[in-house]
Amino acid sequence: MRELGRIHHVAVVVRSIEDSLVFYRDLLRLELEAVADVPSDRVRIAFLGVGESKVELVEPTDDTTGVARFLESRGEGFHHVCLEVDNLAESLLRLEIDGVELIDTAPRRGAEGPVAFIHPRSAHGVLVELIEAQGGPSWKSLGYS
Amino acid sequence: MRELGRIHHVAVVVRSIEDSLVFYRDLLRLELEAVADVPSDRVRIAFLGVGESKVELVEPTDDTTGVARFLESRGEGFHHVCLEVDNLAESLLRLEIDGVELIDTAPRRGAEGPVAFIHPRSAHGVLVELIEAQGGPSWKSLGYS
Repeated sequence: MRELGRIHHVAVVVRSIEDSLVFYRDLLRLELEAVADVPSDRVRIAFLGVGESKVELVEPTDDTTGVARFLESRGEGFHHVCLEVDNLAESLLRLEIDGVELIDTAPRRGAEGPVAFIHPRSAHGVLVELIEAQGGPSWKSLGYS
Repeated sequence: MRELGRIHHVAVVVRSIEDSLVFYRDLLRLELEAVADVPSDRVRIAFLGVGESKVELVEPTDDTTGVARFLESRGEGFHHVCLEVDNLAESLLRLEIDGVELIDTAPRRGAEGPVAFIHPRSAHGVLVELIEAQGGPSWKSLGYS
């Protein structure tokens, strides 16, 4: 059973998208694909493409969110890795039965599709996000067009 | 100019490869490709495949290395991300001219090909490794067959 498709993205928390594009776009030469405000999450994000994956830069837009507290306490750096799965609800159910600590026990709307987070306590210190591949069953149920 | 090919791997420092395979192989269902001792680096590593990328688990085998000190001070978790480039020596030269702080200013032998590290100070808190795509010019000069 193919279940995990690819690394969808690696997310980096930064103080300023604009400043961090100097390294990630201009010097490292990743291809900037999009910059967007995500008001519901109180962040601004940039996606830069590399092969079948992306690097996501995340800038908090106020100081109330978990990402803002992360930046305050730990500084800029790696935040999470996102892996693509075929059927997110099924994967979450199986992981929960297997005793994995989930932050989201059901798919929820993310900027790029249905997502859910696994707690770093279950993943050897790494915050792992799962995203459902485009067209999977949660896309319809969560109202993506 | 295509310069960056893909995310080659995301590396996670763990206390025990064996223990962490329970999550990464058995529960997350990444495909275990190889487990190897790297005596020169005093680590044991496992590579698990996901699409065109890998997750690398790194277990220190003694307490003298940077990876061991990382584990001691910060616990298990994300260690670095590795990006593939076509010509590593050229990329390093260009990055150095552009003022990027390099840990390795020239390609050196890694377990999977010629590699070099960029300091997290230049990469917004992320330790970035570059690896040269198979068959690139440094493969011959570093004596890979």
